[in-house]
Amino acid sequence: MTASNGLTIRPERLHRRIDELAQIGKLGDTGVCRLALSPEDLQGVLLVKGWMEGAGLQTRIDAFGNLIGRLDGKDAGKPLLMAGSHIDSQPYGGRFDGVIGVLGALEAVQTMTEQGIVPEMPIEIVAFCDEEGCRFNKGLFGVRGLTGALEEGELERADAAGVTRREALLSFGGDPAGFEAAQYAPGTVSAFLELHIEQGPVLEAMDRPIGIVSGISGPLWLTVEMTGFAGHAGSVPMPMRKDALVGAAHVIIALNELARSVPGAPTVGTVGSLTVFPNSRNIIPEKVTFTVDLRDIDMARRAEREAQLRRVLDDVTARHGLTYTVREDTNSEARYCAERIKGVMRAEAAGLFGDEPPELMSGPFHDSLAMSQVCDYGMIFVRCRDGISHNPLEYAAPRDIELGTELLYRTMVRLSTGEGG
Amino acid sequence: MTASNGLTIRPERLHRRIDELAQIGKLGDTGVCRLALSPEDLQGVLLVKGWMEGAGLQTRIDAFGNLIGRLDGKDAGKPLLMAGSHIDSQPYGGRFDGVIGVLGALEAVQTMTEQGIVPEMPIEIVAFCDEEGCRFNKGLFGVRGLTGALEEGELERADAAGVTRREALLSFGGDPAGFEAAQYAPGTVSAFLELHIEQGPVLEAMDRPIGIVSGISGPLWLTVEMTGFAGHAGSVPMPMRKDALVGAAHVIIALNELARSVPGAPTVGTVGSLTVFPNSRNIIPEKVTFTVDLRDIDMARRAEREAQLRRVLDDVTARHGLTYTVREDTNSEARYCAERIKGVMRAEAAGLFGDEPPELMSGPFHDSLAMSQVCDYGMIFVRCRDGISHNPLEYAAPRDIELGTELLYRTMVRLSTGEGG
Repeated sequence: MTASNGLTIRPERLHRRIDELAQIGKLGDTGVCRLALSPEDLQGVLLVKGWMEGAGLQTRIDAFGNLIGRLDGKDAGKPLLMAGSHIDSQPYGGRFDGVIGVLGALEAVQTMTEQGIVPEMPIEIVAFCDEEGCRFNKGLFGVRGLTGALEEGELERADAAGVTRREALLSFGGDPAGFEAAQYAPGTVSAFLELHIEQGPVLEAMDRPIGIVSGISGPLWLTVEMTGFAGHAGSVPMPMRKDALVGAAHVIIALNELARSVPGAPTVGTVGSLTVFPNSRNIIPEKVTFTVDLRDIDMARRAEREAQLRRVLDDVTARHGLTYTVREDTNSEARYCAERIKGVMRAEAAGLFGDEPPELMSGPFHDSLAMSQVCDYGMIFVRCRDGISHNPLEYAAPRDIELGTELLYRTMVRLSTGEGG
Repeated sequence: MTASNGLTIRPERLHRRIDELAQIGKLGDTGVCRLALSPEDLQGVLLVKGWMEGAGLQTRIDAFGNLIGRLDGKDAGKPLLMAGSHIDSQPYGGRFDGVIGVLGALEAVQTMTEQGIVPEMPIEIVAFCDEEGCRFNKGLFGVRGLTGALEEGELERADAAGVTRREALLSFGGDPAGFEAAQYAPGTVSAFLELHIEQGPVLEAMDRPIGIVSGISGPLWLTVEMTGFAGHAGSVPMPMRKDALVGAAHVIIALNELARSVPGAPTVGTVGSLTVFPNSRNIIPEKVTFTVDLRDIDMARRAEREAQLRRVLDDVTARHGLTYTVREDTNSEARYCAERIKGVMRAEAAGLFGDEPPELMSGPFHDSLAMSQVCDYGMIFVRCRDGISHNPLEYAAPRDIELGTELLYRTMVRLSTGEGG
């Protein structure tokens, strides 16, 4: 039942849908702006909803704005298998981020139907609402709604134009009054599968089209403020200076070296944002504020690196006559993919490629991160050119997307026909 | 003829004038905003003009907006002795910067008259127009006008409100048509003396009220732009990164260490301004732009430090996969105070204090910098609390100002009665 290209899925249908969806909110030749709960987002959701119905799925847009397409299985009482991602985009985004996870899952389940495969349990394909979080500055909205993880006040968050999420959600067809009824009870979902572009350069560097994700490394986010003493750049002798930027420079280098201290480890450490006060060329910096982003799939190692960094902060500030504060903005733990799902993926990939694909960590978060709180999950990464994402330059080769979708299809078949348990 | 406080000048008159001038453009309790060529500046100039006339000086506001008060000497044909500074201020400035140089010089010449001392040559006390340069973003205007060092297009420079310098100067009583006639021919001035707050912490650290300036160290100003490659902070492994901020951090530390490499040397190096692009906490910095300010009274050593810094730029960018550009914004040479004037000051200070005051470099520039192009010059620094200037917190103790003014007076007497030649 496999075509001459080695695939069971239908690549041309998959690519046609990716292209058609990319026309909605199109930005330049290759970009997309489809902000969550915007008219473009709704237009995209309705387009995908139609495709789902054409594939024989029962569809609905739930109270949280999630689009769900359901295929019944032999036993309606069994925990369901879920697959999907999101189709909302960054304001200056690409056409593949999230999209291949939704359309790949749709292609997989449609192929199952065409192949006459009837799953044991129901399968649901989901386009989660507002994964990106850029409009209301908090992401993973729909998936957290479905899994009962929304926080106080989320509906009152306003976008740059002053529109609240409540208003945006109502005009989208969502229903805050129906949140409780729409939540999935514990045990409803047995497993979640997500296909996604890597958004990093690892697979490209390895010359491998797809990879199996080991887990999502939650970031530790800190904001450090260092304070010294301003003075004229021409008149304060070097030994008398309390230069906050010199202090910050030592910390930036130390973080970089700490993250590299175990060669081959996936630890990453980044100072991405830094501001200087008063930021004048002939005044010694009095205050420097910078962010720290530290990630590792190994939580014990991340904690050790954090402790080392805090010792560096003590040492550097003492040495340079500075004071400092550290604010912890986010401290997420790593969430590991289920061994049983990775095992199925490895085995199926071996049949598809002749050998097992590489396993790699996900630095960015995904809808899977929230799903990991309620069920097993597995992710497949597709190689992404130059590691670029959240940018119109984002690109994944058609063949790589096909291979990722084929592996998703084969994994779904195994998991839904009782062979992957 | 010396009072019981050891001084010949009259401190109470000096302080009264400083206080009265500080009421014009007063900001909070201790600050001043008297922008060049503003109504407040004119009000201040007219107040000082009145005091000059009360002291028996012939006054005028010249074509460049400089206030000049003249005392005739025995020989009108001799090159004149000039002393002064400026009374315009920074927008958020202090009450001493510039002011003590004008009012101290006025106090000195008035004391001479009161003491019956008739100078050999004419003496001129000057409040130069627009030393600060913050309004039209180019300073030392009046002194450069007087010494023939204005540049093309200076009159067309506009302030934040769109007012050109030409317009501001005309409404102040200046006269662009009279510039040429108002310039001083070479040889007109024999020496220039300037009393100024240190604007740095050196004298305070030495516990000395005043110092003799060795020279003004011209700054080398560079702007460096380093470019790497952006990427998700969670997904690009450390060895694959091209992080422009890590590169910049190495250069910041290297500049700091280069400036300190000869203990006790007055070399100073500062990165005062730095901006990151895209400056997002979870994106690896793609581009970092920062300034370099490098000063030394020894030009050969400054050139060596610059060469070392440029080698660091080459090494660091090669090591981190970055590219860079360097733009030279300013490259001023050091201007040394005249040995003959410093000698007079040392000798007079020894009589005043019992020992010689310390000699120190000026990092900031002053009206003296422009005067140094046409005549010998000497400067006296007054201790300034915490080294703070260009800020309402700027403070110099009354006794320190008195001592500086007394030394200025004694130096003027020696230089104008033929004993300092």
